[in-house]
Amino acid sequence: MDGWITLTDIVQVLKKMSAEIDGPIRSYIGDEEPAKLVEASRQYPYAGGKRMRPAMVIASAGAAGGDRDKAVPLAVAIEYIHNFTLIHDDLMDGDEKRRGMTTIHVGYGMPTAVLAGDALFAKAFEIISTLDVPDSVLRPILRIVTKAVWDLARGQQMDIDNEGRIVSMEEYIETIRLKTSVLFAAGAAGGALCGGGDERTVEAVHEYAMLLGVGFQMFDDYLGIMGDPAKTGKSAGNDIRKGKSTVMVTHALKSIDDPAVLEEFKAILGKQDASEDEIQRARRIMTDSGSIGYAKDLADEYARMAVEKIAFLPPGEDRDFMIALARFSVDRDV
Amino acid sequence: MDGWITLTDIVQVLKKMSAEIDGPIRSYIGDEEPAKLVEASRQYPYAGGKRMRPAMVIASAGAAGGDRDKAVPLAVAIEYIHNFTLIHDDLMDGDEKRRGMTTIHVGYGMPTAVLAGDALFAKAFEIISTLDVPDSVLRPILRIVTKAVWDLARGQQMDIDNEGRIVSMEEYIETIRLKTSVLFAAGAAGGALCGGGDERTVEAVHEYAMLLGVGFQMFDDYLGIMGDPAKTGKSAGNDIRKGKSTVMVTHALKSIDDPAVLEEFKAILGKQDASEDEIQRARRIMTDSGSIGYAKDLADEYARMAVEKIAFLPPGEDRDFMIALARFSVDRDV
Repeated sequence: MDGWITLTDIVQVLKKMSAEIDGPIRSYIGDEEPAKLVEASRQYPYAGGKRMRPAMVIASAGAAGGDRDKAVPLAVAIEYIHNFTLIHDDLMDGDEKRRGMTTIHVGYGMPTAVLAGDALFAKAFEIISTLDVPDSVLRPILRIVTKAVWDLARGQQMDIDNEGRIVSMEEYIETIRLKTSVLFAAGAAGGALCGGGDERTVEAVHEYAMLLGVGFQMFDDYLGIMGDPAKTGKSAGNDIRKGKSTVMVTHALKSIDDPAVLEEFKAILGKQDASEDEIQRARRIMTDSGSIGYAKDLADEYARMAVEKIAFLPPGEDRDFMIALARFSVDRDV
Repeated sequence: MDGWITLTDIVQVLKKMSAEIDGPIRSYIGDEEPAKLVEASRQYPYAGGKRMRPAMVIASAGAAGGDRDKAVPLAVAIEYIHNFTLIHDDLMDGDEKRRGMTTIHVGYGMPTAVLAGDALFAKAFEIISTLDVPDSVLRPILRIVTKAVWDLARGQQMDIDNEGRIVSMEEYIETIRLKTSVLFAAGAAGGALCGGGDERTVEAVHEYAMLLGVGFQMFDDYLGIMGDPAKTGKSAGNDIRKGKSTVMVTHALKSIDDPAVLEEFKAILGKQDASEDEIQRARRIMTDSGSIGYAKDLADEYARMAVEKIAFLPPGEDRDFMIALARFSVDRDV
C-alpha cells in the first residue's frame, strides 16, 4: 500500500530520530546551581524513551512543507513537558520505578520531584520563547501548548477521580483524550506551524494526533493487562489490582453473560492482594468475553481514522512516517 | 518629599487596586470538569492577599507611559504563577495553614495539590498567549516570565538545601533573589513591555523590582521572627525552630562576642522543640547583638536602592505608587 513503512522499519526510524534529538534534548539544561535540582530535572529526558512526541513534532513540520530543523526546539519542549508530567505522575501514584530507573521522588525526595517537574515545565516554555519562527506564529504555538498542559492536568485529575469506580466509555475516552492526546496534538499542530503549514494542514495533523493519542492510550491500557512486563516495564496485573477502568473492563462488565463469572470477575477487579492465578483468571475472562479483542480493534480503528486525516498531505517521507507512527501506536510490545 | 505616598495611603491604594484586579483574577478559570481540580486551583488566587505583584505589573505599564488596562491580564498571570508556587511550597513544607485557610494538599490531597499548581502555571501562560500587545513584544515577555519560573524553582531548591545549615550572606542574597525577586522583576519588566516602555525603562523597573524583592524578603524574614503572629499568620518562632538561615542569624553568629551567649544561641537555633522562653531568649540575643537592627537597615537600604532605579521616570501617580510600594515592602506588619 502506498506510503506504508513496515513496523520493523518504524522502530528503526524512531531509533534514528531519537538519536538525532538526543543532542538537542541534552543542550538546554546548563550546569547551574543547585546541582541537585538540575540533575533531577535532567534524569527522565536524558534517559531516552520512544521519543514518539518529538518525532511527531519534527515530522509534522516536514509534512507541512517546512524546514524540519526549525521544529527541533519545539520537539525538545514537548518532550520536556511530557517528562515533567511523568515526574509529577510518578509522585502522585507513588510509583518507585520507571523504565528500570528509580523515580525522582524516591531518588531525590518529594520536594525536589515537585520542583524538577516545575523546572522542566518552565524550561519548555523558555525554549518556546526562542523558537525561530515569525512572531505571529509564536502566539498560536504558545496558545495551543499552554492549553494542552491545562487539559493534561484535567485529564490526570479525572484519572485519579476514576480510580475504584467503573466509568462509562464516554468518560474513558474523554479522560484519555485529555491526559494523552492533547499533548500529541499540540506537538503535531505546533510542528506544522513551525513548518509554515496552512490552517488546513495544522488542523489535520492536530486531529490526526488526537485520534492517534486515543489509540495509543487504549493500546497502552491493553499492554498494561496483556503485555510482557519484561518489555513494558510495568508490573503485570497492577491495573487489575487497582481496578483501573479501561475499555476492556467496561466492555467486559457489559458482555459477560454468566452471572457467576461476572461476580467472579468483579471480585478480582480492584482486589489489591489478588494472586497471580486470580490475575490470570481475570485476563482469561476478558479474553473470553471478547473484551480484549474489542479494545484492540477499537485502538486499530482510531489509528485508521488518524491516518485518514492526513491522507491528503503530499506524499513523502514525513507523511509516510506519520502514517507508520499511527500504526505503531497500536501495534508495539513496549 | 516629592513623589512620596504615605504608608497609610499605600495600604489604601493597594486595597483599591486589589479590588480592581479581583474581577479579572476570577474571570480566567471557567467551570470545567473535573470540579475538584478547578476549585483547588481557584482557592488561593480567589482568596486575596496583598496583591503586590499584580499591582506592580499594572503600575509599571502606567509608569512606562502605556495603557494600564493592557497589562491587567499579565498581572493576573503573574498572580497565578505566585499562587502556583504557594500551592507547591505548602505541599513541600508540609504547612497546614495559609492565611487561615486549609492548604490545598491538606484539603484536597497531595495529587490534587500537585495538579492544581501545574494547572495554574499552565493557565498563566495561556493568558500570556492572549496578551493584547504586538506579537514582537509577546516574545520578550514570554522569555522573561519563563526564565523567572525556572529561577524560582532553583531558589526554592536552594532554600531546601539551606535548611539546617548556616549559609553565607552571599548565598542568602542569591537564594532570595531567585525565590522572591525574579518574579517581581518579571512582572515589572513585563508590565513595562505591555506599556510600550523603551529598553531603558524596562531595564530600570526590572532592577527596581529585583532590589525591592530582596528588601521585601529580608523584611519577611524579620517579620517571621519579630512580627505579630496574629497579623502575619505565621507561627511565631518557627523560623528559629527550623534553624532557618537569615541575614539576622548570619549576622548574629558573627557578632555575638560572649562565647557563652554564642553557645546558648546556637543551642536554641534549629531546636525543634524549643520553648517559648527559649524563642524569646533567641530574639533578645539577636536584638542585643544588633542583628535585628542590621537586617532592618539592610532591607531599608535595598528599598532605597530600588527607588533610585526609577527616579528618572516621569513623575506621576504610577511612579509614586512604585516608590511607595518599595517603602511598604520593608515597613509593614503583614
